[in-house]
Amino acid sequence: MPRSDKRRICFPITNRAYYGRSQLLIRKLHGHPSLELELMLGGSILLDKYSRHIADDIEAGGFTISASLFNVIEGGNHVAMAKTACLTALEFTNGLAAIDPDVVVISGDRFEQLAIAMAAAYLNKTIAHIEGGDVSGSIDESVRHAITKLAHIHFVTNDDAQRRVLAMGEDPRYVFNTGSLDVELAARVDTALTNERVNGYGVGHDVDVTRPFIMVVQHPVTTEVDNRKHLETTLNAVAALGVQTIWFWPNPDAGTGEMAESIRHFREHHEKAADMMRFITNAPADEFVAMLKATSCLVGNSSAGIKEASYLGTPVVNVGGRQHGRLCAEHVEHVGYDAQAIRAAVDRQIRHGRYAASQLYYRPDTSQQITDRLAGLELYTQKRFFEAAALSDLSGAVVGPTRN
Amino acid sequence: MPRSDKRRICFPITNRAYYGRSQLLIRKLHGHPSLELELMLGGSILLDKYSRHIADDIEAGGFTISASLFNVIEGGNHVAMAKTACLTALEFTNGLAAIDPDVVVISGDRFEQLAIAMAAAYLNKTIAHIEGGDVSGSIDESVRHAITKLAHIHFVTNDDAQRRVLAMGEDPRYVFNTGSLDVELAARVDTALTNERVNGYGVGHDVDVTRPFIMVVQHPVTTEVDNRKHLETTLNAVAALGVQTIWFWPNPDAGTGEMAESIRHFREHHEKAADMMRFITNAPADEFVAMLKATSCLVGNSSAGIKEASYLGTPVVNVGGRQHGRLCAEHVEHVGYDAQAIRAAVDRQIRHGRYAASQLYYRPDTSQQITDRLAGLELYTQKRFFEAAALSDLSGAVVGPTRN
Amino acid sequence: MPRSDKRRICFPITNRAYYGRSQLLIRKLHGHPSLELELMLGGSILLDKYSRHIADDIEAGGFTISASLFNVIEGGNHVAMAKTACLTALEFTNGLAAIDPDVVVISGDRFEQLAIAMAAAYLNKTIAHIEGGDVSGSIDESVRHAITKLAHIHFVTNDDAQRRVLAMGEDPRYVFNTGSLDVELAARVDTALTNERVNGYGVGHDVDVTRPFIMVVQHPVTTEVDNRKHLETTLNAVAALGVQTIWFWPNPDAGTGEMAESIRHFREHHEKAADMMRFITNAPADEFVAMLKATSCLVGNSSAGIKEASYLGTPVVNVGGRQHGRLCAEHVEHVGYDAQAIRAAVDRQIRHGRYAASQLYYRPDTSQQITDRLAGLELYTQKRFFEAAALSDLSGAVVGPTRN
Amino acid sequence: MPRSDKRRICFPITNRAYYGRSQLLIRKLHGHPSLELELMLGGSILLDKYSRHIADDIEAGGFTISASLFNVIEGGNHVAMAKTACLTALEFTNGLAAIDPDVVVISGDRFEQLAIAMAAAYLNKTIAHIEGGDVSGSIDESVRHAITKLAHIHFVTNDDAQRRVLAMGEDPRYVFNTGSLDVELAARVDTALTNERVNGYGVGHDVDVTRPFIMVVQHPVTTEVDNRKHLETTLNAVAALGVQTIWFWPNPDAGTGEMAESIRHFREHHEKAADMMRFITNAPADEFVAMLKATSCLVGNSSAGIKEASYLGTPVVNVGGRQHGRLCAEHVEHVGYDAQAIRAAVDRQIRHGRYAASQLYYRPDTSQQITDRLAGLELYTQKRFFEAAALSDLSGAVVGPTRN
Repeated sequence: MPRSDKRRICFPITNRAYYGRSQLLIRKLHGHPSLELELMLGGSILLDKYSRHIADDIEAGGFTISASLFNVIEGGNHVAMAKTACLTALEFTNGLAAIDPDVVVISGDRFEQLAIAMAAAYLNKTIAHIEGGDVSGSIDESVRHAITKLAHIHFVTNDDAQRRVLAMGEDPRYVFNTGSLDVELAARVDTALTNERVNGYGVGHDVDVTRPFIMVVQHPVTTEVDNRKHLETTLNAVAALGVQTIWFWPNPDAGTGEMAESIRHFREHHEKAADMMRFITNAPADEFVAMLKATSCLVGNSSAGIKEASYLGTPVVNVGGRQHGRLCAEHVEHVGYDAQAIRAAVDRQIRHGRYAASQLYYRPDTSQQITDRLAGLELYTQKRFFEAAALSDLSGAVVGPTRN
Repeated sequence: MPRSDKRRICFPITNRAYYGRSQLLIRKLHGHPSLELELMLGGSILLDKYSRHIADDIEAGGFTISASLFNVIEGGNHVAMAKTACLTALEFTNGLAAIDPDVVVISGDRFEQLAIAMAAAYLNKTIAHIEGGDVSGSIDESVRHAITKLAHIHFVTNDDAQRRVLAMGEDPRYVFNTGSLDVELAARVDTALTNERVNGYGVGHDVDVTRPFIMVVQHPVTTEVDNRKHLETTLNAVAALGVQTIWFWPNPDAGTGEMAESIRHFREHHEKAADMMRFITNAPADEFVAMLKATSCLVGNSSAGIKEASYLGTPVVNVGGRQHGRLCAEHVEHVGYDAQAIRAAVDRQIRHGRYAASQLYYRPDTSQQITDRLAGLELYTQKRFFEAAALSDLSGAVVGPTRN
Repeated sequence: MPRSDKRRICFPITNRAYYGRSQLLIRKLHGHPSLELELMLGGSILLDKYSRHIADDIEAGGFTISASLFNVIEGGNHVAMAKTACLTALEFTNGLAAIDPDVVVISGDRFEQLAIAMAAAYLNKTIAHIEGGDVSGSIDESVRHAITKLAHIHFVTNDDAQRRVLAMGEDPRYVFNTGSLDVELAARVDTALTNERVNGYGVGHDVDVTRPFIMVVQHPVTTEVDNRKHLETTLNAVAALGVQTIWFWPNPDAGTGEMAESIRHFREHHEKAADMMRFITNAPADEFVAMLKATSCLVGNSSAGIKEASYLGTPVVNVGGRQHGRLCAEHVEHVGYDAQAIRAAVDRQIRHGRYAASQLYYRPDTSQQITDRLAGLELYTQKRFFEAAALSDLSGAVVGPTRN
Repeated sequence: MPRSDKRRICFPITNRAYYGRSQLLIRKLHGHPSLELELMLGGSILLDKYSRHIADDIEAGGFTISASLFNVIEGGNHVAMAKTACLTALEFTNGLAAIDPDVVVISGDRFEQLAIAMAAAYLNKTIAHIEGGDVSGSIDESVRHAITKLAHIHFVTNDDAQRRVLAMGEDPRYVFNTGSLDVELAARVDTALTNERVNGYGVGHDVDVTRPFIMVVQHPVTTEVDNRKHLETTLNAVAALGVQTIWFWPNPDAGTGEMAESIRHFREHHEKAADMMRFITNAPADEFVAMLKATSCLVGNSSAGIKEASYLGTPVVNVGGRQHGRLCAEHVEHVGYDAQAIRAAVDRQIRHGRYAASQLYYRPDTSQQITDRLAGLELYTQKRFFEAAALSDLSGAVVGPTRN
């Protein structure tokens, strides 16, 4: 690719949720006068109908898609997930080598992002990681920290995460708490929720969003074997509640297949309970936020329950170990895989109603902060381990070194 | 694969150096009554003539090779290296899925080992990592710590490494300083060095090992672009010394191609200087140790200069940034890529003669300690981050939890 | 793999239909005293619920599954199909290298079978191809003949096919018309059709098989772009007939995604028509044959309409170009993608009723004939082109050279 | 890629020999007003020093290289060769999907070209094949015809080949005998041979090209197991001749490793004989032709001995089965792997001296003819089998249908 004198930023997007939360950032990166943005698409974002709208959306936004790589291996099990990661890395290596970016932006903790980070590291690229330092359950916990140890610039979303990234030996001049992009988006969205729009997504019974409804988002936990049973537990709990429900389909990860089967089975065999449920595969990020603002309670194990909901004050019942140990505001009640406990917790949260907004994951201008640093920081590739003892010497440094 | 009630340990070996240093461990794992050892071969170990001897050796030892996977992509550049890693991960995924081990042992910090660790993590296997926590230059620095963050059991080689692995949030009940396998091997080898054997390896001029000779091992540094120039600097420095030299060919990594070309070019154009040099691609681990014991000075950037040489008291001139920051005994003199400085340092080290043995990287019975823990520890897969504050609670624990 | 003195036959199975038709052959190969059978599974056969039964079935039969390789890339488009083939070839290379068979059996003309044949050819294996020489539309037409030119032993199903394989330059001593395995199976099946069993498969309305019903099997044609529209044409035609219908879900090929979407859309928006339809993803081969024996007419583009139906005398309406040019008995009426024409043709066929059995694709003991030749023929790997002129010299030869 | 209304031609080049022979064609395709040429590089052409000159050359010529894909897997054995083909196909799939060409040009019969043809076929592209229909030994024999059965347009080099391509069922309106590109190039080259230039390539002893010298090009035969022994036979025969020799290094195929080892071993242990030999890895196509014009005899199994040499009248001793059955002019003497026989045949050929030029493989303006047809023919993708009987109907057609 012919080079201008702009710094070239490559942003691989492999998942619709990542695209949703990154919209503000992508627009800022694209608009910055000294940056050149290259989007690469791969993974599940290329696979569904809604994602085709994403691609249109992206191109309508004037962004360049440098590569579209189909690399999801079917199977819905660990082997398929591992091989998807490997194939993703293989193909992104070619893509990254062709683009030859100055910085590769790795977002979050999905399994394929580590694979891309590995490829980028081996190509000797500077890696910027968004959302490192958090703790959680699932394989995400391993993935997130492994990416941190491959990355050179860190944009974390909260103080605890910053402390952990520093403890892991990262250069303190390159670790920034810029708050959460999801929360920034949640804070800015003012989409009005309408029955017409909500019932335009997914299948199942119509939901009347002017009346109380709950939302469920329960993803498989790749390090657990009983994903199907765990989902059924939630299904039974929710069915027993007798409340209108918007149920978001799980992510396409290991364990998805059997979870999707459970939902289908449930729909066929519990028609009455299913009659109060709408099942949605995707909705645009702003619509999702609008639902989150309106719902009586979010149930499941989505990070949206921890982050966006904290700022929006939405009551949350967090089920099982996926978000284990993550920094939480008071709006979350944690329960195990126990239908009775889930039902009781949801009841309590519905009765409690909305919480005060928390600033735990919020900083103003997150996307602008990240963009400015990607444009201005001096880049490096050879990492070294910064030990706590050495850190005191650097305590005066508040921003990283900037390029001339 | 049909399962016995033994714990199944899978040991991927991708590099002859790793095989060399792991011989004692492999034998111990193979012999342990409650363990079942499966070796998997891939990467460069399958590629050269000497490696075929390794495969014979392995089978002669009664070990099972579960898979032999050709996955080195030619090119000798970053793209080839990255793609080799991806292909390795892809193929080891199939292999690991077929073997279905309880534990996957990842050794060291080579780029393909991170790829295998990633595959193993996604297959939800328990990962044991040997030699984590060290610091160095090169991409190895990133690879090593990223593996740590995917691994569940850590066998480090020195106290500093242990401190760093704990700082990175690993479970202190699963972090063990068992010393270095290389050093254990070095301590046990009593192979006699003979001219006949030494001159049976490689090409070039015969070396008389009853007289003073130096050794050179200089690998490419993947995060540096001037590998060829750096090698030529060392070639010139060594040529100017006028001492007999055993030169070990660099590892097959990104940057190797141009380094090998330099050596060939040097041999053709500096016949006189080359007349004092023998170029060896491989030698068995015990022969290498025997040479290390006998050499007047080891020059280059091999980890053997830091580790084995510390115990053996061999003078070392460490060139450039590859071992940057690694814990070192007093036998090492560090110099930059400067022919004059290298030559002067080697002169000083030859004059100094051997050093006292250091225990920095030595613990007795390293391989037995590792084996016993792999057999006895309770295994887990879901990682969580242990923060320093939390560590004080665990200070009494000196060994990990054992299985019933 | 340790070797006995038996000839080792590797049979890759990538598709449930192939498994169905190959059951007799697999049993014969497994039971032959001088053969050793290794099954390898990959592709779509590993993906669905029914396929898991196949794996159980296989293992219950005492057969060895040497490898199970997940290699279907999601996307349902040409890119995904091409990459699936490549990944299949890559993984089967490792599997074949490990098994080291004397003969690899390639069945039919599915896209991934050419990929496996290529891998086997490059590993210098003798390749036996079943069902070469036919002509049809779709990419299958290219795939089938390309496999022929990689294969060494040919088991064709009819005289026309034999003539074409010879015209393409194959060694006449290794080209055998053994008839069709599908037809052999169809001839032997005596499974009784019951409502209970039929309605145990798939979803949708129950079918009463004691009353007239039609069957539809319409696969995507990978060289056509309007698969969705073509399917909708058939859906509309069938809906207008007002006859009970058993509709088999299309194969997972390029174009499947949009076809499946059409069917789902149809089911939701034409409830009344859909009320006469049952949609089945898979049924065991013997049940499929039982339905074929009982149905009033088979509609679509399945090869079963050309082959099994010819022997069973089932009326067939063959739609579009997928079977273009294939040798046909008189039971088939060919129509284009035209709802009116399809409807009229089905009407005519229903009125006509069953046809006399044709022997076009039938030879007795197909599976035994193939097995005996795989056991007895002298094997070779270096191919040469036999020109028609040279063929007259060989006219006396009726069987291939046998091994001592 | 944004599209003009030009027809887009994609030309994958994977081998330096193919680049050499295709230079005239590439220039013509590039210059044609209604064509748009996209070159894709992969395989061995990216690997050696000389190839880097090729890339420079290509870019200097103003041609676009759409992708450079490192996909050669080390090993030099069948497994590595098969996997290289699979990886090549995988990566070219992405490249072809991004370029979205109207026609993919597949040249010759190397193993990776079939893999690319398969990918192109599955992407539903029109494939033009150059040099189909020939017969030879080695895996090339299978590869060549399998490509024919995937291709839509055929440019063959001689009448026999045309007859065979038609026999295989190809559409006679799309089969053209345009002669050999190699021979066209040989006919046009007037590079003067100088000692300076010749001895600027490769290593070993200087050759005096003003005096008699022989050339050797002996590639591994992938379907044979004794490549090493066969090469040593030729080495011994040539050594015994006592004539100056230019020896071209074998292609990087399965079997190369051991052949290269033989040559190295020979050079070290037969210094005297080796003193008359120069070993060259690559030379530009025009220099190669200049040597071919001047040499007393070409020995080995290169197709240049059959084709270019026929037009140039160079005496050839063809060794072994690699060119088995290929159409030959009278300048070739065929011998087996027998040192005595090789030596005697070379002696006879040297004594015979040059032959009269043959037109077997020659047509004027080969590259222009191919270019014009690629620009003017109506394209199609759905293949069908043309049987000999049907051919008589088409006998009037001498050129294919042209587009409006």
